[in-house]
Amino acid sequence: MENNKTFCPAQEAFKILANKWSLMIIKELSDDKLRFNRIKKNIEGISSRELSKRLEVLEKVGAIYRNIISTKPIMVEYSLTEAGRELTYAIEILHNWTIKYKKRTR
Amino acid sequence: MENNKTFCPAQEAFKILANKWSLMIIKELSDDKLRFNRIKKNIEGISSRELSKRLEVLEKVGAIYRNIISTKPIMVEYSLTEAGRELTYAIEILHNWTIKYKKRTR
Repeated sequence: MENNKTFCPAQEAFKILANKWSLMIIKELSDDKLRFNRIKKNIEGISSRELSKRLEVLEKVGAIYRNIISTKPIMVEYSLTEAGRELTYAIEILHNWTIKYKKRTR
Repeated sequence: MENNKTFCPAQEAFKILANKWSLMIIKELSDDKLRFNRIKKNIEGISSRELSKRLEVLEKVGAIYRNIISTKPIMVEYSLTEAGRELTYAIEILHNWTIKYKKRTR
């Protein structure tokens, strides 16, 4: 159904990111690489299942790395890729946009 | 259900923009103010109903102006607001991001 005229690449990124949890995970990882349990602790209200799912999607689209560190027991750390870091600019613009817009209409 | 820790302002903007038609309307209006029929003609596949709905949402969030010109018959032109223009930066980043990401994974 998509043709050249109606296909919109930006939409794909928007669809991935139109999820509160995905945005918050990217935000968490923008400062540091973190382990699963640390992300879970930092993001109030996220379930382990939801976090796993979101990390999987973000890894699949190339926004985050899953680093396996061969300690005993094995440690898994997540970090933003270069591509993931690029997303943070757009997220910041839209974050500020919403705050600005809210002020304007109240 | 939203508290300070899990509320994410960026999500609101993402939700509004995670729609192909909304993105394409903003893109169309980034060059010029346009009348309803012109937008409809430029965006292949959009129905009048969908276009009306999208224009209404974009006007409500403050991204576009609906300018009524008192000719006979009355003419209605749509244009981006300053806030709408700010959105185009984020859209461009995410547009380019998707194209870059696609290249990387093929």
